[in-house]
Amino acid sequence: KESKIHSSLASHLRYKQNKDTINTIHSIKVGISLVFVSLLYILDPLYDQVGENAMWAIMTVVVLFEFTAGATLGKGFNRGTGTVLGGVLGCIAAILAQNLSGVGNSIAIGTFVFISGTTATYFRQLASIKKRYDYGVMIFILTFNLVVVSGVRTHDQKVWELARERLTIILMGFIVCICVSLLVFPLWASDELHDSIVSRFQYLANSLQDCLEEYVKTEEENKHGASFTLCKSLLDSKSKDELLANFAKWEPWHGKFGFFYPWEQYLKIGEVLRELAAIILTLGGCLRASRKAGALASESETVEFESCEAIGSRIVWSMREVGESMKQMRKCEAENHTSKLKAARTELSLMIATSKIAAIENSTEALAIASSVFFLMEVVD
Amino acid sequence: KESKIHSSLASHLRYKQNKDTINTIHSIKVGISLVFVSLLYILDPLYDQVGENAMWAIMTVVVLFEFTAGATLGKGFNRGTGTVLGGVLGCIAAILAQNLSGVGNSIAIGTFVFISGTTATYFRQLASIKKRYDYGVMIFILTFNLVVVSGVRTHDQKVWELARERLTIILMGFIVCICVSLLVFPLWASDELHDSIVSRFQYLANSLQDCLEEYVKTEEENKHGASFTLCKSLLDSKSKDELLANFAKWEPWHGKFGFFYPWEQYLKIGEVLRELAAIILTLGGCLRASRKAGALASESETVEFESCEAIGSRIVWSMREVGESMKQMRKCEAENHTSKLKAARTELSLMIATSKIAAIENSTEALAIASSVFFLMEVVD
Repeated sequence: KESKIHSSLASHLRYKQNKDTINTIHSIKVGISLVFVSLLYILDPLYDQVGENAMWAIMTVVVLFEFTAGATLGKGFNRGTGTVLGGVLGCIAAILAQNLSGVGNSIAIGTFVFISGTTATYFRQLASIKKRYDYGVMIFILTFNLVVVSGVRTHDQKVWELARERLTIILMGFIVCICVSLLVFPLWASDELHDSIVSRFQYLANSLQDCLEEYVKTEEENKHGASFTLCKSLLDSKSKDELLANFAKWEPWHGKFGFFYPWEQYLKIGEVLRELAAIILTLGGCLRASRKAGALASESETVEFESCEAIGSRIVWSMREVGESMKQMRKCEAENHTSKLKAARTELSLMIATSKIAAIENSTEALAIASSVFFLMEVVD
Repeated sequence: KESKIHSSLASHLRYKQNKDTINTIHSIKVGISLVFVSLLYILDPLYDQVGENAMWAIMTVVVLFEFTAGATLGKGFNRGTGTVLGGVLGCIAAILAQNLSGVGNSIAIGTFVFISGTTATYFRQLASIKKRYDYGVMIFILTFNLVVVSGVRTHDQKVWELARERLTIILMGFIVCICVSLLVFPLWASDELHDSIVSRFQYLANSLQDCLEEYVKTEEENKHGASFTLCKSLLDSKSKDELLANFAKWEPWHGKFGFFYPWEQYLKIGEVLRELAAIILTLGGCLRASRKAGALASESETVEFESCEAIGSRIVWSMREVGESMKQMRKCEAENHTSKLKAARTELSLMIATSKIAAIENSTEALAIASSVFFLMEVVD
């Protein structure tokens, strides 16, 4: 018991320290990239080539450089597409407007700006676009406006040239970002997602064990709060998972993950684990309440509960096993586990028919969900 | 029953339509603001004043204009502070570097860029700063770099002037944003947060009622999925709530909300409602499982369950009542509700002592939590 708390504390500390190191690495990477693009300004021969436009390279690096490689790639893709589309459409609109004279020109430009701004912003709000392409649409609006509006001042050929030059500079900034992000101590969103999902198996198994232990223990100790807090924090993990999976999709082949790795499956597993966490939380609450309300359990109930506990610890064991096999990315013997769990479930159902302890039903639920996790596992590995 | 499903469908449709209207309004507002700042470029007298810098006004509008007024204000504050701080420090660094000659100058600038980029990025990763000031720090990095690096090319007095001019233009863009965002059909984050929290009371009350009804109903119908899906979506609402509360804090006095309105309380209520949702979900699962496993309930159990149901519907009624009073922002008679609920809880505890239906314990839990909601309500109103 003591050693378990110790080890979980140690792993928490390691996690924190680890996070600190990763943050430092990321910060240094950003610093290096910034120095690289600043060279465009600082070194005379380079500055003669690009001129004031070097500003755009700095802006690109500051805006694009995200924590994980996948996020940087995704943002870069968005920015690239948005800039090209906005630039091309902006040029066309500017040239169309230049054919009109005087006030007509200004009115045409105003109309273009209004229509493009309104429609693009509307699209930005749609859930499917917002999720993956929000940034791209924003850049589209920005580029389109700048190009159209610059068209009033610079004429004909100049508009194209302006667009081409800026694009080249932005591309340079992007290349610096990508090189530093992917080649110098890369931080992968896929690793983070994988680790966070794998560690949840461990957390849930611990919480479930605590639940079972708590029921048997005497009143005095009531400090299992820690594992429940972890369990609760799992409930809020959905948006983080989705972000990470989104980024992971952008990442190229690396380490143990191939192309077209089934990231969607991770989201599904995450969903199931969240449900499981909710069940374990409620189970813990029920057990605590029934211990308070029901006073001391009768002899026969204690016996029943003990067999429940045996089954419960079998679930805990299986969860640890599955988490471990997922960590090492080897195919787990899913049939083996599921058949064991099915047997456990039938045992439980039999017991429910004869007894009425509240906890059992929750366990059944947990079982049902645990077995669905195993089916998912089969799909992933 | 039919009419309830109808009304919930209608409210869902109304919600969707409503959201569409709001999106359109927002889009048009963005379009208008863009046209305004484009005038800086289009109209000759204005262009003579600001020159190429007008670009920065457009950029400011595109980047700052967020969906809700609070988000726009918060982002604007971040951008302003980041720009000023970055500008001032950048100027100082540039002037320091100008005192060195030749290569020393370049090396000094490179060092400044690296150090500022690295430390600022490190701070960006810290949770407390990331939550509210992430954007400000990014703008700080950007401005600092641009100013320092421009310092190589433009000299002495020029650096200050450049910074001052850009700041004025950015301020103009910001003022346009704020005026359009606050004065033309303002969309408040505070309203959104309030409505979403209030509507959850309704959702949860409906789900709880469905749970209770389902147990009594015969096997055949099993289409209460809708309210459970809503219940499940509540579990993921944490990050959205936090964002909205963050924005709401930026919003000035308006409508029914005063200054220093206790937004933190909304987050706490949201937390409690999420726990309640988890309990209701599990309760629903338990009831369904026990109906499958336990076959037909004996006579005495049915009687017991009926009294449970009576208590349950009292909870449902109280929840609706509290939600309603929160909607109209009148003080609800909290003592009244809590005393009723306490009585119900004691009744339940008595029943638990004599019987052993699984559901009861969950109800106790629900009760405990419901009463804690009521205490919270007292604080808010």
